Amino acid sequence: VSRPSDSVPELVSRAREGDPRSVARLISLVEQGSPDLPAAMAALAETSGRAHVVGLTGPPGVGKSTTSSALVAAWRRAGLRVGVLAVDPSSPFSGGALLGDRVRMSEHALDRDVLIRSMAARGHLGGLATATPQAVRVLEAAGCEVVLVETVGVGQSEVEIAGLADTTLVLLAPGAGDAVQAAKAGVLEVGDLYLVNKADHEGAAGVRRELRSMISMTERRDRAWQPPVLLTVASRGEGVEEVVAAVDRHREHLRTSGELGRRRRRRATEEIEAVAISVLRRRWRDGAGEQSLAALSALVVAGETDPWSAAARLLD
Amino acid sequence: VSRPSDSVPELVSRAREGDPRSVARLISLVEQGSPDLPAAMAALAETSGRAHVVGLTGPPGVGKSTTSSALVAAWRRAGLRVGVLAVDPSSPFSGGALLGDRVRMSEHALDRDVLIRSMAARGHLGGLATATPQAVRVLEAAGCEVVLVETVGVGQSEVEIAGLADTTLVLLAPGAGDAVQAAKAGVLEVGDLYLVNKADHEGAAGVRRELRSMISMTERRDRAWQPPVLLTVASRGEGVEEVVAAVDRHREHLRTSGELGRRRRRRATEEIEAVAISVLRRRWRDGAGEQSLAALSALVVAGETDPWSAAARLLD
Repeated sequence: VSRPSDSVPELVSRAREGDPRSVARLISLVEQGSPDLPAAMAALAETSGRAHVVGLTGPPGVGKSTTSSALVAAWRRAGLRVGVLAVDPSSPFSGGALLGDRVRMSEHALDRDVLIRSMAARGHLGGLATATPQAVRVLEAAGCEVVLVETVGVGQSEVEIAGLADTTLVLLAPGAGDAVQAAKAGVLEVGDLYLVNKADHEGAAGVRRELRSMISMTERRDRAWQPPVLLTVASRGEGVEEVVAAVDRHREHLRTSGELGRRRRRRATEEIEAVAISVLRRRWRDGAGEQSLAALSALVVAGETDPWSAAARLLD
Repeated sequence: VSRPSDSVPELVSRAREGDPRSVARLISLVEQGSPDLPAAMAALAETSGRAHVVGLTGPPGVGKSTTSSALVAAWRRAGLRVGVLAVDPSSPFSGGALLGDRVRMSEHALDRDVLIRSMAARGHLGGLATATPQAVRVLEAAGCEVVLVETVGVGQSEVEIAGLADTTLVLLAPGAGDAVQAAKAGVLEVGDLYLVNKADHEGAAGVRRELRSMISMTERRDRAWQPPVLLTVASRGEGVEEVVAAVDRHREHLRTSGELGRRRRRRATEEIEAVAISVLRRRWRDGAGEQSLAALSALVVAGETDPWSAAARLLD
């Protein structure tokens, strides 16, 4: 941030006008955990929380990119400004990913009202869990009314994304990702909508039936919402309007039931904690002297103190 | 801890005499994250660091239990008192697991110098990463000179265990867990010894060759140690004495190179941090008033502040 035109206030002001390059620069600050990040986030607080955040997850091969693209098209037809974060939880921070990773979504390439960003989110500061909400804030400042966070289902990421989104879509397909895989991944508890994509393939009705039965037997986090299981053929746009309508119904449910506030407060709590912990960790690691983490670690190794007493002294 | 005979000082004193029941009770305190834990750990500091901690990991089906049992037998022949922690990283805290989970290791069932404990370690306080070293301290107090921590390789646990052990053994077998799987699990960087078990099966020599070649191309955490790749048939005890000898050589290398101190300080650092963070988290979640985490979260959701400013206020 050396050129005056690239100062945080300038970037934020231009991002608010929807300038894609400034949006990209701000998301890069998030990815890099830049020292400018606190200032940027302070400037973005005002517009925060404006978008409905939709998470899309599922195992590889079920058609996530195609479904994302079809959903973006549907929201654009409804006149909404759309942000897309394609998160790869298994990559280290890329830093260099460009806004307009448009190859993946060529049909929206020339649309100024679609802001697309790839993010690699395995890094410092809790990775996906803290980078994503901050990137969402950037897109909200740029006027996005809906932000789609797409992530491939690997390890814990499906369940993690459910903690970050207002509405979580779980995508499955006959063969590639069936109901049993969903159970293993732990998404039966957290999905707000289930999509069985490639519904023109054999076995789609079976996956739907299985899924409904397994969901009915699962203790879910929001008992007041019965998640629909919808059939789609995203490559031909079939069923996509129904998905958009179901997202709207879920959004309405979130508002009227108070669940939206609960989810967002929980998210904010986790974000504040993660930031506080990262600040403390840096302070602790940089510390010197008798009460420093390094000195206390040496005492623990020598058997002169224990981790609990050492932690108490560290916190003094 | 209501009966006077079950007070922490009593338990620690009886564990020092090698009483299995007291060892079991203390490890239960660890699993449960008991309020008595700080007092117990303070009492255990003195004997901490006495055992050589050996981690054993590998994918399912390679013969981990058989290998553990054969290693315990070899250490017993050498006259050592042995502790075994069988950690299941995917289970929630069991709490009720009994010391002397002896069915798995029936040959050592009547041996008072072998203390065996199953631990389920997905819970509060960082799970495996913080529960394991505390359980190791209990076994050290009971006089164990070597502690074997056995964990099934799932997700991040292989790499996690390498952070907890002095010497990490990675177990593979022809077919079940080959060199490519090792690369995927990230264990090429962290193993100090590689065992190709079921060496009487076809393909063992190939796995060994592949493994050696992949290790030679991998940037490893301790460049001064070239990890041997040994062949074993644990079910018949073949190659096990060579493994014990290789562990001894590695232990000697750790001492003379200064790596032992570096690893243990790093481990103590992470343990102190984890404890401090858990203490803070509880304090934050229980807090009330204007600067409480709950109040700050509501402000973030309302767009009146951002997570960075909120974290700074929380830390004030």
